[in-house]
Amino acid sequence: MKPQVAILMGSDSDLKVMSKAAEVLENFKVPYEITVLSAHRTHKATHDFASTASKKGFKAIIAGAGGAAHLAGVMAANTTLPVIGVPIDSSPFDGLDSLLATVQMPSGIPVATVGVDSAKNAGLLAVEILATGDKKLAKKMIAYKKNMAKKNLAKGTKLKKLGYRRYLENNKK
Amino acid sequence: MKPQVAILMGSDSDLKVMSKAAEVLENFKVPYEITVLSAHRTHKATHDFASTASKKGFKAIIAGAGGAAHLAGVMAANTTLPVIGVPIDSSPFDGLDSLLATVQMPSGIPVATVGVDSAKNAGLLAVEILATGDKKLAKKMIAYKKNMAKKNLAKGTKLKKLGYRRYLENNKK
Amino acid sequence: MKPQVAILMGSDSDLKVMSKAAEVLENFKVPYEITVLSAHRTHKATHDFASTASKKGFKAIIAGAGGAAHLAGVMAANTTLPVIGVPIDSSPFDGLDSLLATVQMPSGIPVATVGVDSAKNAGLLAVEILATGDKKLAKKMIAYKKNMAKKNLAKGTKLKKLGYRRYLENNKK
Amino acid sequence: MKPQVAILMGSDSDLKVMSKAAEVLENFKVPYEITVLSAHRTHKATHDFASTASKKGFKAIIAGAGGAAHLAGVMAANTTLPVIGVPIDSSPFDGLDSLLATVQMPSGIPVATVGVDSAKNAGLLAVEILATGDKKLAKKMIAYKKNMAKKNLAKGTKLKKLGYRRYLENNKK
Amino acid sequence: MKPQVAILMGSDSDLKVMSKAAEVLENFKVPYEITVLSAHRTHKATHDFASTASKKGFKAIIAGAGGAAHLAGVMAANTTLPVIGVPIDSSPFDGLDSLLATVQMPSGIPVATVGVDSAKNAGLLAVEILATGDKKLAKKMIAYKKNMAKKNLAKGTKLKKLGYRRYLENNKK
Amino acid sequence: MKPQVAILMGSDSDLKVMSKAAEVLENFKVPYEITVLSAHRTHKATHDFASTASKKGFKAIIAGAGGAAHLAGVMAANTTLPVIGVPIDSSPFDGLDSLLATVQMPSGIPVATVGVDSAKNAGLLAVEILATGDKKLAKKMIAYKKNMAKKNLAKGTKLKKLGYRRYLENNKK
Amino acid sequence: MKPQVAILMGSDSDLKVMSKAAEVLENFKVPYEITVLSAHRTHKATHDFASTASKKGFKAIIAGAGGAAHLAGVMAANTTLPVIGVPIDSSPFDGLDSLLATVQMPSGIPVATVGVDSAKNAGLLAVEILATGDKKLAKKMIAYKKNMAKKNLAKGTKLKKLGYRRYLENNKK
Amino acid sequence: MKPQVAILMGSDSDLKVMSKAAEVLENFKVPYEITVLSAHRTHKATHDFASTASKKGFKAIIAGAGGAAHLAGVMAANTTLPVIGVPIDSSPFDGLDSLLATVQMPSGIPVATVGVDSAKNAGLLAVEILATGDKKLAKKMIAYKKNMAKKNLAKGTKLKKLGYRRYLENNKK
Repeated sequence: MKPQVAILMGSDSDLKVMSKAAEVLENFKVPYEITVLSAHRTHKATHDFASTASKKGFKAIIAGAGGAAHLAGVMAANTTLPVIGVPIDSSPFDGLDSLLATVQMPSGIPVATVGVDSAKNAGLLAVEILATGDKKLAKKMIAYKKNMAKKNLAKGTKLKKLGYRRYLENNKK
Repeated sequence: MKPQVAILMGSDSDLKVMSKAAEVLENFKVPYEITVLSAHRTHKATHDFASTASKKGFKAIIAGAGGAAHLAGVMAANTTLPVIGVPIDSSPFDGLDSLLATVQMPSGIPVATVGVDSAKNAGLLAVEILATGDKKLAKKMIAYKKNMAKKNLAKGTKLKKLGYRRYLENNKK
Repeated sequence: MKPQVAILMGSDSDLKVMSKAAEVLENFKVPYEITVLSAHRTHKATHDFASTASKKGFKAIIAGAGGAAHLAGVMAANTTLPVIGVPIDSSPFDGLDSLLATVQMPSGIPVATVGVDSAKNAGLLAVEILATGDKKLAKKMIAYKKNMAKKNLAKGTKLKKLGYRRYLENNKK
Repeated sequence: MKPQVAILMGSDSDLKVMSKAAEVLENFKVPYEITVLSAHRTHKATHDFASTASKKGFKAIIAGAGGAAHLAGVMAANTTLPVIGVPIDSSPFDGLDSLLATVQMPSGIPVATVGVDSAKNAGLLAVEILATGDKKLAKKMIAYKKNMAKKNLAKGTKLKKLGYRRYLENNKK
Repeated sequence: MKPQVAILMGSDSDLKVMSKAAEVLENFKVPYEITVLSAHRTHKATHDFASTASKKGFKAIIAGAGGAAHLAGVMAANTTLPVIGVPIDSSPFDGLDSLLATVQMPSGIPVATVGVDSAKNAGLLAVEILATGDKKLAKKMIAYKKNMAKKNLAKGTKLKKLGYRRYLENNKK
Repeated sequence: MKPQVAILMGSDSDLKVMSKAAEVLENFKVPYEITVLSAHRTHKATHDFASTASKKGFKAIIAGAGGAAHLAGVMAANTTLPVIGVPIDSSPFDGLDSLLATVQMPSGIPVATVGVDSAKNAGLLAVEILATGDKKLAKKMIAYKKNMAKKNLAKGTKLKKLGYRRYLENNKK
Repeated sequence: MKPQVAILMGSDSDLKVMSKAAEVLENFKVPYEITVLSAHRTHKATHDFASTASKKGFKAIIAGAGGAAHLAGVMAANTTLPVIGVPIDSSPFDGLDSLLATVQMPSGIPVATVGVDSAKNAGLLAVEILATGDKKLAKKMIAYKKNMAKKNLAKGTKLKKLGYRRYLENNKK
Repeated sequence: MKPQVAILMGSDSDLKVMSKAAEVLENFKVPYEITVLSAHRTHKATHDFASTASKKGFKAIIAGAGGAAHLAGVMAANTTLPVIGVPIDSSPFDGLDSLLATVQMPSGIPVATVGVDSAKNAGLLAVEILATGDKKLAKKMIAYKKNMAKKNLAKGTKLKKLGYRRYLENNKK
């Protein structure tokens, strides 16, 4: 099946973070393509990828980069698909540089930015976007969120019951 | 026709900024609903809006708020629709507080954040999301971006020709 | 005896920090309840907890969360009890995001914010609030602070006497 | 009737901001005292005020200051009453200096910090603290919050009905 | 004579700042070309400009942009000429976003960044670069700096003589 | 009488701020010299001033500068007199750049830094330094601080008596 | 011999940093007293220390503290001796909180602030202040700086000669 | 052959970072000189180096320093050669202090600033500057960038083929 989401990153050192987006898409059985494309080092290839992404059948693009993070911006400049930006914490500035370089886009060229290193949320956002036109996927997402709530509530119940000392001890084991 | 996008804001003092999102949707003939809903002052109504948005036919939600901006987060917590957050510059911190409170969402609950006060980009992002399932809208978006490029190139040509002195003088008139 | 203070946190990964509030309350023999409640993952339960906290006999709520920390805000939006917010350092931004998301509340919905990761101070503040209506507790707090001062003065006297070299050596042992 | 809340500020240039706390207390008919006390310029008087506040019948102290804002901290160091700190935006740093100097208190000495310039929220927090031991006041606070929600919902309904253009025009008049 | 320096900016709203670079080049009689080229709105044209700049005879490129300022980065990605970046203060973040997006380039793709809004310094830096291969220009630059020092010393002498009161009064006139 | 304190500034645009230091010194009858000396534009003269300051009889140097504020640092590098640095708010960064460039000196070369634009405090600090060897000056400083306290207390008493409404009205007149 | 400089710190956890000031004073044979005094935990003792410091013969006070660092400010509020503040990096904010809480003092109450954790520079600044009235000390300081320069130049010569590879290898050994 | 580029650093603790610039120059066979020169500790020698650099045949100067990083500024103040500044991350502020102290130069004295710790980019920028007058060097630079792009594309192709799991596993080996 043709990939519907592209997961791009500026450098393979971003892969550990960005693989979380791929895990989400696999979990939701959304076909995806994952590759390295640098806005700066391979600018032409990056431009071409963006320009042809829609024709190739992609529905959304996830782009992660650090520092003066331009990858999502270059994507957004050359496609009309929704582009999701993941600012990556890879410089001494704790990701503030990549956050601002990703989110503060000029008028006319939006990038849907998620939190620093939040590739998992980027994957979920891509699924939500696809789900606007896919009822089955929407249902899966509802189930996913219910399950997440359930686990959270269970932790709350457990903590209330055990007290903090035993809960902390249990987690150490 | 039923509204496809909801434009929400925490306070009517945010309306001047948020109206730019409405202008974009009107421009693309996307039906929308616009209202005030405070994550804090009217928490129950906010919760109810989010929980029923999908059933009412909304496809995307745009939520703008300032300071400890929780509106987009509360929306995202209670719907599986894509939620677009607009951090609004309404405190002495120049929007840094609203940006961080909007974008740094916990794992599992993404908010598609745009730049501070960038309601226009939020509108465009909503259109891009709808366009993933609507070819006519996708074409309009392509035309929109081409037109934007054209205007920009025309400015460049004019500046190159006139030189900066005359260009600046012309703009004053 | 019925719990008078609720200690809530967005995730059980916050427990190590938040347990310091529980230690303080135990120290002052103030009954408390401790649990996990996520403003985003279990929004409905969070809302319900806040709405009924006063009726259940709680006098104050301590809420700790990291990143786009909305837990204290959601509490404050749904109760008229004093809500104490503990910003937790759990993202690359060193707690600046959680501090701003906790303290910069809109007009009408205060959160009593303490320092980043300062759950101990949150516990003490809760005791101070209860002590406004409980003379015995007030006396304990006076004794607590006196004791703290005494220990501090003793350290000063010791350092003055030993000199820094021997003081540092003693602490190593 | 004896004042229950003290409203202090480091300089009379802070009065315009701090008067919002007084307005709230008047609104809730909570007797208060308001004065200028500088942690630095009149350190002894400040110390004495804090040391005797509890005996004089105060239940809570609101302290506002800008820059290296120490007033709330000095109060908290010398009383066991709850101290509410209002960071005031009075330097080129937009209140970041006063926020950090107010909220980042050492272990053992909490200050209940509200947002920058949020004296109104400080007043409301003081009322919430008093209301933990005063059912009538608690009822008033519930009514206050309901009324706030009602006004907010009314704005939302009006905006939904008028649309943003007419709403913005109406507000201009 | 063929232009040796290109002055580019992301939007014509940057022209007032960027014209200072042009003034410097005119002052040093360095031929230049000035135009608008948006890294996002006209990405293809921007790419083409960079790729052909060296062949057209340019020796240095000055690129100014605000917000998520990518223009200098896109230039640097597509040429081996020295690229000078001018971060422009055009968002609520006072130019911090444009500074970080301009200076924090990935390894391999340098941008010579000057201070926020310092287009004049960008012009001088371009002249210094050209002067490494042009002795006449180098001499002019030496004279320029001497003259600047002389003016500065004259102000110092005047202030020393007049005292601050009369100096300030003189400047008012 | 020979000047004991030098007041230096990087540009005459800093004079309005720096004149506050001169006012203080006049008030305490401390002879001073005031001039413009740029760490960058007139580096040699700046170096010479520092190297000879002690021999000329200066006891302390006050240096104010904005942006990448190096003036105080260059002074401290070339004299063993105490150097007081005044970071001046003259760039879009609200004085954060000048504060960090003034205070974060390397080991071995201290600069006594005061708050942003706090030239008055720089003047007072210079007087305190001179007063360590001048009992008369020390007495004047004690009187100065007492007077300051007295005025502050008077404001407090007045506010307590008038209430905030009449106090604010009085100040308007 | 009576101590001339007091070295104070808010907590004995600051001693490792603050001992660098003591080392400098010992190096210059300046008698000093070192102790722990918390602006918050032992406010009265702190106040008393400051009020009597001048009479006891102190000439300068060095005060180090972290977080909402008030110790130097409380000292400065209660003495007319020069007070040197050392912001200590002891919270998740990397010392930004302690820097701002130390340096941004109100008009009338200066604190001579050095860099974060720069207790060594605080010691040197104290020596420079004492040296304004002590020619022998001034000579020692001149010698100290010359020696520092000599060591630095020697490193430069060595690096130039060895090249970076061998220099780095030598340092590893 | 005479060195064309000078690589300077404030302290030999900066050498590990700054050696990356030397590696680049060696790679491009550009002769260079590397040494330690502190703007503060050896101010005179620093001044002399800058003043004579052009006569000695240098074409560009690379200067790296941390904290209140003045080295590049002092260089730029005393030469008309292009000066490249490398802000070094050597204080608790993650290089923000050195970045601002390097880049925010006053009008008239530019420093070509690269990213924090980006000495490699400083080396490449120096080569680009030399290459404006040296066609052979320009060709080498073109080849260098092509090679970099090739490697990047190869990584992308490999990731696309292997998938993220095997790619990450391969990298571990």
